[in-house]
Amino acid sequence: MSLDERLEKLSENLPDLTDPKVLTKERLEKMIASNLGFDLFYGTERIDKKTFQALLDFAKEKKVLEKMIGMQEGDVVNIIQGVPSENRPALHCSTRDFFDDVASSQRATLARERAKEELTKLEKFEEKMQKFDHIVQIGIGGSELGPRAIYEGLVSFHKKGKTVDFISNIDPDNISYILEKYDLKKTLFISVSKSGTTLETTTNEKIIRQLLEKAGLKSQHQIISVTQKDSAMDDKEKYLECFYIWDYIGGRFSATSMVGGVVLTFGLGMDFYKEILRGASAMDLVARSEEDNLPLLAALFSLWNTTFCNIPTLSVVFYSHFLSSFVSHLKQLEMESNGKAITKDGKNITFSASPILWGGVGSNAQHSFFQLLHQGPPNAALELIGFKKGQYDEDFFIDKTTSQEKLLSNLFAQSIALAKGSENENPNLNFPGNRPSHILIGRRLDPYSMGALLAFYEHKIVFEGFLWDINSFDQEGVQLGKKLADDIIKIYKKEKDHKFDLAEVFIKRLQEKL
Amino acid sequence: MSLDERLEKLSENLPDLTDPKVLTKERLEKMIASNLGFDLFYGTERIDKKTFQALLDFAKEKKVLEKMIGMQEGDVVNIIQGVPSENRPALHCSTRDFFDDVASSQRATLARERAKEELTKLEKFEEKMQKFDHIVQIGIGGSELGPRAIYEGLVSFHKKGKTVDFISNIDPDNISYILEKYDLKKTLFISVSKSGTTLETTTNEKIIRQLLEKAGLKSQHQIISVTQKDSAMDDKEKYLECFYIWDYIGGRFSATSMVGGVVLTFGLGMDFYKEILRGASAMDLVARSEEDNLPLLAALFSLWNTTFCNIPTLSVVFYSHFLSSFVSHLKQLEMESNGKAITKDGKNITFSASPILWGGVGSNAQHSFFQLLHQGPPNAALELIGFKKGQYDEDFFIDKTTSQEKLLSNLFAQSIALAKGSENENPNLNFPGNRPSHILIGRRLDPYSMGALLAFYEHKIVFEGFLWDINSFDQEGVQLGKKLADDIIKIYKKEKDHKFDLAEVFIKRLQEKL
Repeated sequence: MSLDERLEKLSENLPDLTDPKVLTKERLEKMIASNLGFDLFYGTERIDKKTFQALLDFAKEKKVLEKMIGMQEGDVVNIIQGVPSENRPALHCSTRDFFDDVASSQRATLARERAKEELTKLEKFEEKMQKFDHIVQIGIGGSELGPRAIYEGLVSFHKKGKTVDFISNIDPDNISYILEKYDLKKTLFISVSKSGTTLETTTNEKIIRQLLEKAGLKSQHQIISVTQKDSAMDDKEKYLECFYIWDYIGGRFSATSMVGGVVLTFGLGMDFYKEILRGASAMDLVARSEEDNLPLLAALFSLWNTTFCNIPTLSVVFYSHFLSSFVSHLKQLEMESNGKAITKDGKNITFSASPILWGGVGSNAQHSFFQLLHQGPPNAALELIGFKKGQYDEDFFIDKTTSQEKLLSNLFAQSIALAKGSENENPNLNFPGNRPSHILIGRRLDPYSMGALLAFYEHKIVFEGFLWDINSFDQEGVQLGKKLADDIIKIYKKEKDHKFDLAEVFIKRLQEKL
Repeated sequence: MSLDERLEKLSENLPDLTDPKVLTKERLEKMIASNLGFDLFYGTERIDKKTFQALLDFAKEKKVLEKMIGMQEGDVVNIIQGVPSENRPALHCSTRDFFDDVASSQRATLARERAKEELTKLEKFEEKMQKFDHIVQIGIGGSELGPRAIYEGLVSFHKKGKTVDFISNIDPDNISYILEKYDLKKTLFISVSKSGTTLETTTNEKIIRQLLEKAGLKSQHQIISVTQKDSAMDDKEKYLECFYIWDYIGGRFSATSMVGGVVLTFGLGMDFYKEILRGASAMDLVARSEEDNLPLLAALFSLWNTTFCNIPTLSVVFYSHFLSSFVSHLKQLEMESNGKAITKDGKNITFSASPILWGGVGSNAQHSFFQLLHQGPPNAALELIGFKKGQYDEDFFIDKTTSQEKLLSNLFAQSIALAKGSENENPNLNFPGNRPSHILIGRRLDPYSMGALLAFYEHKIVFEGFLWDINSFDQEGVQLGKKLADDIIKIYKKEKDHKFDLAEVFIKRLQEKL
């Protein structure tokens, strides 16, 4: 079944970007949207004026702006109609709405006040963190990916003498490596779990606690928690401090809450952390606007490519070297939010939705997987992101251009090459072209634009959910694996009451051969 | 057009893994192949006995074993019939064939002797490296990804007091970060480019050379090169030492040549480096064998899922925390090798081939993109890799099991959950199942098994190429973007003779807003 007949019809007649009369300078000049210092170039998408208008109309029909404002104001957006579901708002914007008072509803205002309290607590706690040289966040999924992406992306803003690391994996090597690298005495640990029950996190925290005690250190002086009020991790006897999050903050949307706040303040300082919040909040406003709504436009391209052009994956390539962790964050954000089987009405999705998101950093990726993007099957749409200036003040002038100019030349070249292609009588040198992409260029990757970028993607993914009628805020798909893993652990424990015996085959085999 | 009618026919009737009478313990027990300490469990693939036999028959028809032996012996496998092409052998196995004299042809023997010479040179050079604390490899694509994956994967084997890093990106931030981190005086640089002309590498080398001179250091005493004989980088006046590679070693297959050799010897020591070579060479032998040929089996599952089940992507998940860089290596290996449009006869590929490869590390990925794998569109086959023991000697016993046991329980649980699914009247808790995967388990990720794993994937990808009739050894698809980038750089240089003026739009816009 088609999601929209008008768009379906338009997709039967895509503009041919390999035709120089189609892919013109005039086209590229017209197809630009700008906001908050970002330019979005979309002349290399397979879209014409008519399609663009139809996409905007579709967004209007779906009331996506109203829904976005509703989400920011505290509407119950995390819901599946007619069946038991989480039934709650998604108020992550409230964790940074400290500058323009974007939201005004009672619910959003309360959420903002709560978030402000935590920020005030953090401002006081900053002093206590000073005696530590290292901070290690124990957390997995959204408790690692967003904060890590922000921290690693802002290399030139790192506080001297302070290091930030993560223990996320249940793999014992993850902890052993951390122990080898850092002096326990000088290390502050942050345990992050909303529920307070995540297997990986609680296990790793127990291990760290034992190791601290073994080293003669007091674990309650070196571990803090970020969790929900009244969870098992909300305990001032066991933790040096407890910071709060709430059920309306989803893990993958939690980077601007204390899930990111403590670790980023330690690694970057409070001023830069606030700049991140300021940038994110400014993008929250952009996401409410009728004009030049960058996240909405990006979501519409995603809708077009995924649903109407049937392209099953989206490749995101950052032309900024230290954003490679940002790709990992985006993988969760996109696929955990929108990798679903049903709509918000509990009906099976019958159209193509939910792209697989993957990617890397450029120019490196050009020397890796771009071969397939140019000549392989047309299974990826592209998003190319860059910045006018490098993050460090230094640039290098070699052979009449700077490195940043060379980098951007490569970015632009890829977008054009993928669109226009090139014919050659040698079939191995033939490029079919018509591979869609768009380009997002920011001024410079500083804390403010990092915050804006974070929120840009959060809203893009949410808009996609609104367009596809998907609940982007739950993740029931991870439950079955968890349940089975708990059951298989019982085999290792030699408990007899485990239900699924298939894994016995693997375990027996491994034990035979040890 | 179908690649094979018998397999096509079999794909119309796939085994239903959600049926407990199909997915039995007996099935899992039968569907195991073992070699070199690795177990490959493939009972969770959508394959039955008949299909398995048909796949083996197809491999035989395609003469893949003869071709593999031919490749290792120096046959001209890098060729497209009927059109100009690179026309050369792919002799990467010769760079590690030092233990069992696997190859015996004159060409392979000569290649082995040449590689041995370089190893001897490296053994002598090891002494000279001792005075440096840091080594930074300047190289991009295969000159970074393989060596980095191996180095970062073997954390517990790192030499104390020595650090290894890479400058790959033309992004100036990449160099600035390195300069901030390392004392130039204590840093040895390795410039790696087969042709000696790679834009990123030659530019970055020039920058480093200027910075060394500016710091009063002699660049010819601190930079060595890895390149082809007689390239611009084969120059003992400019480099402390020059190591050689040859035109028959492709970048993405070069990790066991001096491209990886120098940097790995610095970071891990010569003994461990040789263990890596030993493991890789042992797997080269496995790839020649009729029985339990692990890379061939993995390639056959890839053929089955990609071509006959039309699954467009392969998600590789390592349940070993520090193999996340290995995913980046594999992305190049798979997509640059097999992301092609034509067969070796120069004809258009008319069947589904060339999966997009992406992935991550487990258990982390379960808290990120596994939502989509379980409930999203069925666009990914899975490969799950783990080890019986952790890499460090230490494991942690909490709540009656060790962390490694918890990790493996998660790995096994995912494979079974994806296959068997689970029905629920709440559609949001419904899991369709029948999502194919296989599991590869090694003993422990030490240098030997790292080498074996590296070669396992090299051969898997090459076998895929043989099965699809693709030339896996060239990468003409990267040329158009390079050409366009060179042209766009001319705009920045204000040279008037550039040919493609589309990018002027982007550049003008950026300059307006600076």
